[in-house]
Amino acid sequence: MKFQAEIDVMPKKEILDPQGKAVSGSMKNLDLSEITHVRIGKHISLEVEADNEAAAHEKVEQACKKLLANLIMESYTFNLHQA
Amino acid sequence: MKFQAEIDVMPKKEILDPQGKAVSGSMKNLDLSEITHVRIGKHISLEVEADNEAAAHEKVEQACKKLLANLIMESYTFNLHQA
Repeated sequence: MKFQAEIDVMPKKEILDPQGKAVSGSMKNLDLSEITHVRIGKHISLEVEADNEAAAHEKVEQACKKLLANLIMESYTFNLHQA
Repeated sequence: MKFQAEIDVMPKKEILDPQGKAVSGSMKNLDLSEITHVRIGKHISLEVEADNEAAAHEKVEQACKKLLANLIMESYTFNLHQA
């Protein structure tokens, strides 16, 4: 079975996010000062071939831990659905 | 009212995604060859102060169009919920 995973990798709350800070600042110059607390991370979409949803879940966990997220600075969340 | 927006900005389907291609390749070396079609974009979370959800929606649309997404190469989706 094929599953589609949608993963968000975000900088941890305690970690400064300079890119997000810069964007927050730019919002003021664009007359969008109502927008604050911008944080920027990665969004990753991928396909997994697995026998069942639990196996697909495990594969995506491994991919996040080994490659996609730097667990010292980032945390990840994802959801899976059948493709 | 305060709203929290979660925005995904992804490279358009027709656009080559070299970062995603590189990650797809690396999956093989990590014994995760079941993972394919990796595409990598940005995930942005932010807060909007607005009178109602429609106004917040409009603000986030503007932010995406003016700053967060390059509409030539990227498309965006987002959802809003009250913070």
